Amino acid sequence: MIPKLAKPVTLVALTFALAEVAAPPVAVGQPLVVTGATIIDPLADTSIENGAVLMEDGRITAVGAAGAVDVPAGTSVIDARGKYVIPGLMDANLHLYLNLDLETLIKYEGRYHEIVLEAAQLTLKSGQTTVFDTWGPLDPLAKARDMINAGEAPGSRIYFAGNIIGFDGPLSRDFRGEAAAHVSKAFVNRTNEAWERGTGRDLMWMTPDSVGAAIREYTGTGVDFLKYGSSSHVEMYFISFSERVQRVIVEEGHRADMTVQTHTTSVESLDMAIEAGVDIITHGDISGPVVPIPMETMRKLVERDIAVSVLPITQRRLDALQEHNPEGTLTPYMTVGRENQARMIEAGVSMLLSTDAGIKHPVLLAESSTIASDTVDQRTKLGEGHFNALAALEELGMAPMEILRSATSHIARAYELEDEIGSLQPGMIADLVILDSNPLEAARNYRSIHAVIKDGRRVDIDALPVAPIISVLKPDS
Amino acid sequence: MIPKLAKPVTLVALTFALAEVAAPPVAVGQPLVVTGATIIDPLADTSIENGAVLMEDGRITAVGAAGAVDVPAGTSVIDARGKYVIPGLMDANLHLYLNLDLETLIKYEGRYHEIVLEAAQLTLKSGQTTVFDTWGPLDPLAKARDMINAGEAPGSRIYFAGNIIGFDGPLSRDFRGEAAAHVSKAFVNRTNEAWERGTGRDLMWMTPDSVGAAIREYTGTGVDFLKYGSSSHVEMYFISFSERVQRVIVEEGHRADMTVQTHTTSVESLDMAIEAGVDIITHGDISGPVVPIPMETMRKLVERDIAVSVLPITQRRLDALQEHNPEGTLTPYMTVGRENQARMIEAGVSMLLSTDAGIKHPVLLAESSTIASDTVDQRTKLGEGHFNALAALEELGMAPMEILRSATSHIARAYELEDEIGSLQPGMIADLVILDSNPLEAARNYRSIHAVIKDGRRVDIDALPVAPIISVLKPDS
Amino acid sequence: MIPKLAKPVTLVALTFALAEVAAPPVAVGQPLVVTGATIIDPLADTSIENGAVLMEDGRITAVGAAGAVDVPAGTSVIDARGKYVIPGLMDANLHLYLNLDLETLIKYEGRYHEIVLEAAQLTLKSGQTTVFDTWGPLDPLAKARDMINAGEAPGSRIYFAGNIIGFDGPLSRDFRGEAAAHVSKAFVNRTNEAWERGTGRDLMWMTPDSVGAAIREYTGTGVDFLKYGSSSHVEMYFISFSERVQRVIVEEGHRADMTVQTHTTSVESLDMAIEAGVDIITHGDISGPVVPIPMETMRKLVERDIAVSVLPITQRRLDALQEHNPEGTLTPYMTVGRENQARMIEAGVSMLLSTDAGIKHPVLLAESSTIASDTVDQRTKLGEGHFNALAALEELGMAPMEILRSATSHIARAYELEDEIGSLQPGMIADLVILDSNPLEAARNYRSIHAVIKDGRRVDIDALPVAPIISVLKPDS
Amino acid sequence: MIPKLAKPVTLVALTFALAEVAAPPVAVGQPLVVTGATIIDPLADTSIENGAVLMEDGRITAVGAAGAVDVPAGTSVIDARGKYVIPGLMDANLHLYLNLDLETLIKYEGRYHEIVLEAAQLTLKSGQTTVFDTWGPLDPLAKARDMINAGEAPGSRIYFAGNIIGFDGPLSRDFRGEAAAHVSKAFVNRTNEAWERGTGRDLMWMTPDSVGAAIREYTGTGVDFLKYGSSSHVEMYFISFSERVQRVIVEEGHRADMTVQTHTTSVESLDMAIEAGVDIITHGDISGPVVPIPMETMRKLVERDIAVSVLPITQRRLDALQEHNPEGTLTPYMTVGRENQARMIEAGVSMLLSTDAGIKHPVLLAESSTIASDTVDQRTKLGEGHFNALAALEELGMAPMEILRSATSHIARAYELEDEIGSLQPGMIADLVILDSNPLEAARNYRSIHAVIKDGRRVDIDALPVAPIISVLKPDS
Repeated sequence: MIPKLAKPVTLVALTFALAEVAAPPVAVGQPLVVTGATIIDPLADTSIENGAVLMEDGRITAVGAAGAVDVPAGTSVIDARGKYVIPGLMDANLHLYLNLDLETLIKYEGRYHEIVLEAAQLTLKSGQTTVFDTWGPLDPLAKARDMINAGEAPGSRIYFAGNIIGFDGPLSRDFRGEAAAHVSKAFVNRTNEAWERGTGRDLMWMTPDSVGAAIREYTGTGVDFLKYGSSSHVEMYFISFSERVQRVIVEEGHRADMTVQTHTTSVESLDMAIEAGVDIITHGDISGPVVPIPMETMRKLVERDIAVSVLPITQRRLDALQEHNPEGTLTPYMTVGRENQARMIEAGVSMLLSTDAGIKHPVLLAESSTIASDTVDQRTKLGEGHFNALAALEELGMAPMEILRSATSHIARAYELEDEIGSLQPGMIADLVILDSNPLEAARNYRSIHAVIKDGRRVDIDALPVAPIISVLKPDS
Repeated sequence: MIPKLAKPVTLVALTFALAEVAAPPVAVGQPLVVTGATIIDPLADTSIENGAVLMEDGRITAVGAAGAVDVPAGTSVIDARGKYVIPGLMDANLHLYLNLDLETLIKYEGRYHEIVLEAAQLTLKSGQTTVFDTWGPLDPLAKARDMINAGEAPGSRIYFAGNIIGFDGPLSRDFRGEAAAHVSKAFVNRTNEAWERGTGRDLMWMTPDSVGAAIREYTGTGVDFLKYGSSSHVEMYFISFSERVQRVIVEEGHRADMTVQTHTTSVESLDMAIEAGVDIITHGDISGPVVPIPMETMRKLVERDIAVSVLPITQRRLDALQEHNPEGTLTPYMTVGRENQARMIEAGVSMLLSTDAGIKHPVLLAESSTIASDTVDQRTKLGEGHFNALAALEELGMAPMEILRSATSHIARAYELEDEIGSLQPGMIADLVILDSNPLEAARNYRSIHAVIKDGRRVDIDALPVAPIISVLKPDS
Repeated sequence: MIPKLAKPVTLVALTFALAEVAAPPVAVGQPLVVTGATIIDPLADTSIENGAVLMEDGRITAVGAAGAVDVPAGTSVIDARGKYVIPGLMDANLHLYLNLDLETLIKYEGRYHEIVLEAAQLTLKSGQTTVFDTWGPLDPLAKARDMINAGEAPGSRIYFAGNIIGFDGPLSRDFRGEAAAHVSKAFVNRTNEAWERGTGRDLMWMTPDSVGAAIREYTGTGVDFLKYGSSSHVEMYFISFSERVQRVIVEEGHRADMTVQTHTTSVESLDMAIEAGVDIITHGDISGPVVPIPMETMRKLVERDIAVSVLPITQRRLDALQEHNPEGTLTPYMTVGRENQARMIEAGVSMLLSTDAGIKHPVLLAESSTIASDTVDQRTKLGEGHFNALAALEELGMAPMEILRSATSHIARAYELEDEIGSLQPGMIADLVILDSNPLEAARNYRSIHAVIKDGRRVDIDALPVAPIISVLKPDS
Repeated sequence: MIPKLAKPVTLVALTFALAEVAAPPVAVGQPLVVTGATIIDPLADTSIENGAVLMEDGRITAVGAAGAVDVPAGTSVIDARGKYVIPGLMDANLHLYLNLDLETLIKYEGRYHEIVLEAAQLTLKSGQTTVFDTWGPLDPLAKARDMINAGEAPGSRIYFAGNIIGFDGPLSRDFRGEAAAHVSKAFVNRTNEAWERGTGRDLMWMTPDSVGAAIREYTGTGVDFLKYGSSSHVEMYFISFSERVQRVIVEEGHRADMTVQTHTTSVESLDMAIEAGVDIITHGDISGPVVPIPMETMRKLVERDIAVSVLPITQRRLDALQEHNPEGTLTPYMTVGRENQARMIEAGVSMLLSTDAGIKHPVLLAESSTIASDTVDQRTKLGEGHFNALAALEELGMAPMEILRSATSHIARAYELEDEIGSLQPGMIADLVILDSNPLEAARNYRSIHAVIKDGRRVDIDALPVAPIISVLKPDS
C-alpha cells in the first residue's frame, strides 16, 4: 500500500480565466480547475451539474457547484461545459508485460520495462489512471512503476504483484514449457527466475512454516501486493495449496501491510481462498466449464467483504466465441462465468472491473487463426478491453453507478487505497477523466474520452505511447 | 466390508493319522490339521512350539499345543514338525491388472478378468492369501473376486476399490494419455470408462453435494472399499479435492459401511486427508522429493488410529536406483520415503505392507532400459515385491513381530476385517502359511514357503497360475 | 505371373434349358451359358446383341450370337435378355489389408488373412473378379490368394506385390512410426517384418549389386509381381533409388518372369522409372502439388508401352476436397493429378483403373473429421471406389470402350495376363459381369450389377462377405 | 570464381633491414620479406632451407634462397630463422554462421554478418587465410566477404555458396523445423528466405528446365560457387534430384563460371553426382552407416579429376564417440567414413581438408551432454577442427606433403583458384603461415603458428577476433 497522505479539505472560492479545452498540460505546481461539467463521483449520492473540480499540488482541493469553488489566481482552467467528469478509471487485473513468446522474450531481454512503460501509456491513453498488474516480471515492473511515479515517464500509476505464488515462470509447464527446449537452459532459468523469485511451484511441497518463510522474504522485494494460486494454472481444477498454507500466505501478506488476492478457477478452490481470508478473488467469476458458483458462496463473499475482480464479456463476443470455438478453449468457462457474474450482481458482491489484458505481439496476433477473439469486443486488448467489459456489465443489468464504482471506487477500496484514489472527494489524488457523453446513460460513453488528468495535470494523450516498441510491429517484424 | 460371519469357537479333541507333507489338497469339507510346527500368531504374546492348528469348514477351530488340540476322525494332517505357521500374508496395496499398454489393453479386451485371476494366483503362490487391489477395472475385478470366492478358480482373496476417485482412466492424462491418439475414440472411451465409472476428474469441478451424490452411486457398483485422490496423480504436488469435499467422500464411504483410503503424495494433501477422516493413507510414505512428513503429522496418524500403507524398499535397491537414476524418476521420492518410514516406526504408526505391484508385461519389461528397477530387490513385481518389502522393514529396524503384523493383522484391522483374517485365533478364516524357517529370526525367511492353506484347504502352489496368459510372454509375443 | 494355360478354342453348339436368373451357382464342372445379352468384349470391334457366352471347366469356350453357340446338354443357363455382359472388372492398384492402426494390428494379429479374404469378397461382390494388391503383408496375402485359388473361400482372384521395395513397414517412419512408441519393440519388429521381408529402407544404402541380391531373394517368397519406390513415401519429392539401382530391380523382376511397377510421386522420379524400364507406373498421375507431367514424358510412356495405373476422382469430389481442405492434405496433388489424367488421355497412354482402396476401419473412419473424404464419391472405399473412378474417367472425356479397357483388358495386358483374363475371347478364364444397363452409354451403369461369374461359376454375391470381421464394426467396437 | 588477376612475375633483388619478429603489421603498400626460414611450397619438389619470400602489393614477388632474393629498400623484414613457411591454410568446407538456435537467430537478427566476421577472424587467427563457406545466409556472408576484401575488417578471405540448392532454410524440416512453432510465421519466413533465396525444396517438384531457370537466377545473387544436395539433408539415403536435373545445375554453374559441388551422403547419390559432372564432392567420405564407397567409384573420381572434401577425425575421437554414442548419432557414419578416407588415399583421390566447423554458441555447447564431442579432438570447433583433421590424415597414412596440399594447393585447384592462392609461387597472393616447427615432420606442428601473413601483411593474430560477440558468451548469457 502507498503511504496514506494527509488529506487537504479546504474549499476555496472559484475565480478563473477561460482556457481552451485543447490547452497544453499545466506547468508543475500550477493549480488546475475543470469547470462547467457534470461531476459524477461514485461515492456521492447525486451528480453536480455545472460543477467544478479544483486541483492543487496533485490533489483535489475542492469540488462543488461551479460558482461555489474558489479558484486561486493563476489557476489553469479547462472549460468542460456539457461534459462529464469521473474519477480516473482503473483495471483491477491486467498484465503490462504479457509477451511470453520466445521472439519477444529474447529480443527484448533487458528491456522488458520499456514494454511495461509502453503498456502503461496505452492504458493511460484510454482513461485508466491506475492499473493493478497481477502477474509479471518483478524488476521491470518495479522499474517502470518507479519511473512513472518519479515523473520520468508518463503512464498509468502501477501497483503490481510480481509472481503468482505457486506458479513457475513463463518457460515452465505453467505457461510455455514446450518452448524451453528451443533455447539454452541458462536463458530458461533466468527468464523463469525473473518471474518466480523463490515463489514457484516448489512451495507446493513445503510445510506451512517453510511457505511462510518464503513469503516473508518475498514481501521485501518491492512488490505492492500479493497474489497466490489457490487453483493450478494449467489444469484448472487442481488445487495448489492446502487451506492452512493459504492462510499462512494471507497472514504474511497482511503482516507486510499488503492486500492478498488469489487466482481461483474452481468452485472449491474459491471456497478455500475465502476461508483462508483473502481480500480479493482474481477473476472470481471463473469456476470451470460445468458448474456455477453456489449462491451460498456468493453470500460468504458479501458477508466477509471480499471483492472479486471479474472478466465480463459481451453477449456478442460470447456468441462469436461459441461459433468459432475450437476444442480446448475457454469458451465454456466464459459461459459459466457470465452466469457467475449475474449471480454476483444479484448477491451484491463487490465486483472489480478487470481484463487480464496485455499488449499482444501484433504479428503473432495477426497470425493466430481465431477470428472471434481478435475482432469482436475484445477482452484482453490493452486500452480497449475495459470499454468492452464496462458494456458487458451494463448488459448484465448492473446499475450505472455500480458500473462506475466497479472501475473506480470499488477497486480502490479492495486494494485499500480508498483514501487516495477512486473518487472525487477533496484530498484525493487528482486523477480525472473528462467524457463528452454521460457514462450513466450508456456504458459505451466511457469511450468518449475528452481529457485525462493524472496527478492534477492534463495528460497529452495524443502523444501516448511516447516511444512505442512492440505495439506497432508490422507483419515483417 | 464383507459380512461378518458367525465365529465357531469349539475346541475339539485331536486325533489324526499322519499325512505326508506333499499330500494332495484335502477334500471339500474335510477337516485339516497342521501339527508339530511353531505357531506364530501376530496377536499372541508368545509363539506355541510344537503346536497344532485345526481347521474345519474353512475356519480355524482350534489352536494350541499339539497335544492339546482334539482332532476329529478323518481329519487330514500336515506334519509340519520343525516348521513355522503364520497367518496368510496380505498386500495392502497392489494392482492385479496393471497393464496399461495398448498391446495388452487391445489384445485382452473382454478378458481382463483372466489377467486378474492370473495375478491373484501368483500372489497366492507367494503366500498372500488376501490382497487389496487399490486401482483397477471394476467389472473384471469383481468377476475374478467372485469366481475365487465361489471356488471356481484358485486365487488370493480379493478386495478392491475400482477407480481412485478423481482420477481419469488409463488412456487419459492421468496415465497414458498420449497413447489415446493411436486408437479409436470409441476404444479410449470404453477403456477409460471401465475404470472411471462416473468418478473421474470431472468431480473436481463439482460442489460437495454433487460429489456426494456421485460417490453414493459408486458405492453400489460392487466395490469393496473406497479410495480417492487427495493428491493429483500426474503432478504430484497438486491437490485434487478441497478438505470439505474429501470429508464428503469419507462420509459416503462410511455410510456404505466401507473403509476409505486416499492417494496422497505431498505433506499437505496428507494432512488434509487426515483431517477429512480417512481410515487408511495409501503409500503415505510418499511426500514428494524435498521434505519429509513432520512428526506432528505422524502423531496425528497415531492419535486418530489411521493406518498407512507403505512402499519400503531395501537400501540396496535405493542405491541401485540412485546410481541409474535418469531424470524425472521417483528416486528422490523414495529417498524421502525411506526417511518417512523411519519416522513412522519411531512414532508408532500402524504401517501396512504394500507394493503397488502388478504383472508387468514381460516383453515390455525386458525392453525397458532401467536396469536397477528390473533386477535389484524389485518392488512392483507381483509375487516377489512383498518379500523385498518385508526385508526393507527389517533394515529400517522394525521389530520382527511388527513386521509380521504389517503383513497380516494390521492390514486386517485397517480394512476392518480383523474378525475374519489376519490372525490364527479360533474362528478366523483358515488362511495359513507354513514356512521352513523362522520369519522372526530373519525377514528373508518369509520366502521359505512350505505350504499355503486358504479357507482351510491346502493350495497346490506348484500349479499356480493355472492358465497363465501374460506372465509367461516371450520376447516375440 | 501365373502359368499360361493352353487355350481351348472349340466352339460348341448351343442347346440349353431356360434357367431363372436367380438360379443357384452351377455345380463344379457343370457348363454354364449366359444367353440373350449384349456381349461387350473390350478387344472386339463391335458388341454382339442377343449373344451367348458358353463356359466350361472355368474357361470361356464359345462366344457368339445366341443362335450360333452350341450348348452341351446339361449346361446351366442364365437368361440375360436385355442385359449386358462384360469381362470381370479389375483394380490395378488396391490394398486388401490397409489397416495400419494399432487397434486392428494388435487385435487381428495372426488373422490378417481373414481381413484380406473379407476384402477380396467385397471386391468380388462389386464386380471385380481380379485385383492387384500393390502393398500388403506377404504371408496373409499369399494365404488368402491360395485359399481363393484352391476354392476354399470365395473372393476376387488376387495377385500381389507384398512390400514396396525401399519402404519400411507399417510402424516405421514410412507409415505410422509415431505409434511404435506405444507398443513393444517386439511387436513393432514383427509387424514391420511382415511387410518388409528384407526389402526395406536399408536397401537405399546399398550398391546396385547388393540390391540385386536382395531382390533376387525376394522374388522367391511367393509374390506375384514386384513394386518398388522410385519416390519416397513420406516426403514425396525425394527419390529413393538411383537410376542404375532401379534398373537392377527391374532386371531382377524380369529375370523372375514378373512384371515390375514403381511408386512415383514426382515428375523426375517418374522419368527415372521410365528410363529404368518398368512395366507399370503406379498412380503415375500423381506428380506433386505444383507441376503436371510434361507431354514429352507422356510420349515416352506411349512409345515404350508402359501402362499407368491412375487414381481418377470426380470433379464433385475434387470440389468437396478443396472446400474442406485442411492443411497438409493431398488435394493439390489430386488437382494436378486430374490434369495429368487429361494429358494421358490426350497422349494415348494405357491407363489402368485403380483406387488404392482398402477396408477402412469403420469406427475410425466415422471418427475422422474430414467430411468430404467420407461421403462424396469416395475413392478409397473398397467395393465402391472403382465405380467412382470409372465415372471420373468418363468426366475426363475418355471414350466408353477405353473406359472398359482401363478396367479390364489394359490391366490384363499390363500385368502380362492378356492370355488369361481381361476379355471375352474363347479360351479365357470365364470371369464375367452381367449388367442391367449398358456401360457404354453411361459409366454409372457399371453399378447395375446383375450377376458376377468367376471361373465359369456364378457367384452368390448376396452372401459376400461370408464371414465379415472388420467391415461391419459398430461405434462401440 | 574470383576474376583472374594479372600475375606479376618479376624477381627483384633482396635488400632488407632486420626486423623484430613481433614487429607491427607493415604499412599498406610497404614490401615485406620473410627470411631465414625453410620454405615449403606444396607445388615444389623440395623445400628451400634458409629461404626468403618477398611480398609486394599483396603478392609474392620472389621466392628463393635467402641470398638470392633482391629486397627493395624500405622493405619490412621478418626474421624467421629456424622457422617454416607454408602457404596460408584453407578449409574447403565450413560454416561461418552455424547458429541455428532461436536464441541466436532472434537476438542477432540483422547482425549475422558480425558473427560471420567474428568467425572469419577466428579462422584467420588459426592460420586459415582462405575459407570456403558451403552453407549460410547469403547477404550476411556477402557483406562480411566484401568488408574483408575491402580491408574494412580483418578476416580470412571468404568464398561462399549461400544455400545448398534443394535445402529449405534453418527453421524448416531440413534443420530446426520443430522450433518454428515457437516464433511468428513472419520470422520463420524471413529467416528461411535468408538462406533459401528461391533454391529450396520446391525445386524437387520441378522439371529440369524450371530448375535451370532458378539456378540461373541464383548465380546472379553474388555467391562465389554453387553447392546442391544430391542427397537429402534429413534422411540421408534419400536422393534429392534426378541425374538429369543434377546435370542442369552443374551446367548452369559452369555457365556462370562457377565451380559446382554437391552434398552427398550415400554411395548412390555420390555416383549420380559424379555422372552429373560436379567439380567437388562435399564430405564425400560420408556414405552412410553401412557400406563404404566401392573402389570403382573412387577410380571414377580420380579419372574425372573430381576433388573430395573430407571430414577426417582421429582414432581417439572415433573411440570417444563410439563409447559415448547415444542412439541416432553419426558415429557409424564416421566409422564408415574413415574407411572411405583410407580408400581415397589408396586410390589417389584429391582430398580437401574440411571440418564443417562453425562457432557453436558456447552456452548451448556447455549445456549439451555429449562429452566426447566437446572435448576429444574436436572436429567442428572453429579454429581448432582443422588441426585435428590434419592429424587424422597423418594417422591414416597420408604422405606429409600430401597433407599440406590437402589444406592448400588441392583446395585452391579444386575451386579453380590455383593461379591466386594455395602455393608460394611468385605472382600468388601473399598468404603465408610461419610455423615454429616442421609440419612435414609431424602434423601436430601445424599448431605451432608463429605468424600469419595475408595479402602481404602480417596479421595481428593476438587481437583476433576484434569485436567478439558470440564466441565469448558466458553461462548466464
